[in-house]
Amino acid sequence: MSALTLAKASEIVDAALGHALELGLRPLTITVLDPGGHPLVVKRQENAGILRPQIAHAKAWGCLGTGQGGAAGARHATRDPAFFAALAAISDGRVASSKGGALIRSEDGELLGSIGVSGDRPDNDEAVAVFGVEKSGLVADAG
Amino acid sequence: MSALTLAKASEIVDAALGHALELGLRPLTITVLDPGGHPLVVKRQENAGILRPQIAHAKAWGCLGTGQGGAAGARHATRDPAFFAALAAISDGRVASSKGGALIRSEDGELLGSIGVSGDRPDNDEAVAVFGVEKSGLVADAG
Amino acid sequence: MSALTLAKASEIVDAALGHALELGLRPLTITVLDPGGHPLVVKRQENAGILRPQIAHAKAWGCLGTGQGGAAGARHATRDPAFFAALAAISDGRVASSKGGALIRSEDGELLGSIGVSGDRPDNDEAVAVFGVEKSGLVADAG
Amino acid sequence: MSALTLAKASEIVDAALGHALELGLRPLTITVLDPGGHPLVVKRQENAGILRPQIAHAKAWGCLGTGQGGAAGARHATRDPAFFAALAAISDGRVASSKGGALIRSEDGELLGSIGVSGDRPDNDEAVAVFGVEKSGLVADAG
Repeated sequence: MSALTLAKASEIVDAALGHALELGLRPLTITVLDPGGHPLVVKRQENAGILRPQIAHAKAWGCLGTGQGGAAGARHATRDPAFFAALAAISDGRVASSKGGALIRSEDGELLGSIGVSGDRPDNDEAVAVFGVEKSGLVADAG
Repeated sequence: MSALTLAKASEIVDAALGHALELGLRPLTITVLDPGGHPLVVKRQENAGILRPQIAHAKAWGCLGTGQGGAAGARHATRDPAFFAALAAISDGRVASSKGGALIRSEDGELLGSIGVSGDRPDNDEAVAVFGVEKSGLVADAG
Repeated sequence: MSALTLAKASEIVDAALGHALELGLRPLTITVLDPGGHPLVVKRQENAGILRPQIAHAKAWGCLGTGQGGAAGARHATRDPAFFAALAAISDGRVASSKGGALIRSEDGELLGSIGVSGDRPDNDEAVAVFGVEKSGLVADAG
Repeated sequence: MSALTLAKASEIVDAALGHALELGLRPLTITVLDPGGHPLVVKRQENAGILRPQIAHAKAWGCLGTGQGGAAGARHATRDPAFFAALAAISDGRVASSKGGALIRSEDGELLGSIGVSGDRPDNDEAVAVFGVEKSGLVADAG
């Protein structure tokens, strides 16, 4: 059993933010959830849009909700937009199937939680999410 | 520090309404929000539809939520309708990415709040929003 | 027929705000609704709390919802708190039975709308609401 | 202008968590909001209850909503439970008037945001909140 601690989740978020600074991205919000979908860490850069916390949460929560990374979710949404709209309603707005969300796993494949990043373009959000997780010695399943 | 006062926000709304009268537009609702998305002024002309206050609020709030003007949001929504539908749910109905919403900035580029106008065609709503902000010596970022 | 125009509602709100300045009250939010419960004017002073718009709205809406002024509603709530709690849920949070809300009537007794004031003590909120309505030549029924 | 940065908000939360460790408190969630009520940092210790993020948010948001610290809000709620119940509904569950919430001000009295702590007894939650803010050189108004 290797549950994600607050200390580990903070390490992931800080590594991700450091990478965003290196890349010169727009202001971000980054959220790490435990396997139950409850936040361990949320950090929002001070100039990020005021909906970014909810979007980052929904990217991370959506991965746990459907068991797949954000890129897989985004492809699914493109193929089947009506189902995706239903998911938004079913989940009471907790699902955004978009790049920037990833499942977090141990090296053994155990599900430890998820990460969501919002604020820049989807590809950049995803790069930051994956960097933070892998820098911390865990596995990012971005889909 | 140049936060938007109630007096300044009122000046913006009254200038916008004056322009709408000159143009002979349909009855409007105009809302100015502070940077946190909270109203400073709402004015609804007496024959405007009863959902116009919420639409004007969502045009203004959506700009702050995602950090872009309403025209940029409208283009984004056209390109990616599934994500836009998710945003409506994620935000609990506080986002309408449509012309008529604009960020309000100081001449130095500092974010001071946002404006939303609803009631006529999107192009006319946007013209009124931009007029009110610029007449008051501030910068409208309509996207 | 003497429906409340935006111009008349603005006159009420500005008179009420002027009176609050004279009294040196804490930052206020003042809302005037039409008989359907839809806003004509909302003004929030720039340092007022971020829930004040909703509270002012609920004071004004609650008067229309139950057909009595805020002081009468407050007495009712004190006598029957369980029913008051039910009203909060029934109305989806649109009712606050508290001083600071008043029905607005013509001299002939016709219902024209309502006003809600929030930000200072209930007695002061009420004084400001009544002042604004009466200064504008209409009748405030604060209950 | 001395807006709260993410770096400063993180410093506050980490100082508060360090104090909680020294005191041997139960698992906590700590949230720091900007003046508009939007999160800068949320940290939830890994064994904290799954509603703690929302409670910490509501303690912090409630301070901004009504312009007073959590202890003042708690006294208010004891005096006027019916209005407090209405506030819960009006705010859509974003207000918890309880010890553990505090406004954050600069030395000059400028409102910079708020903090909410949840997980232990209200007195301990408040002690941790105040410690984190003051350790960071700012002023905590717990009411």
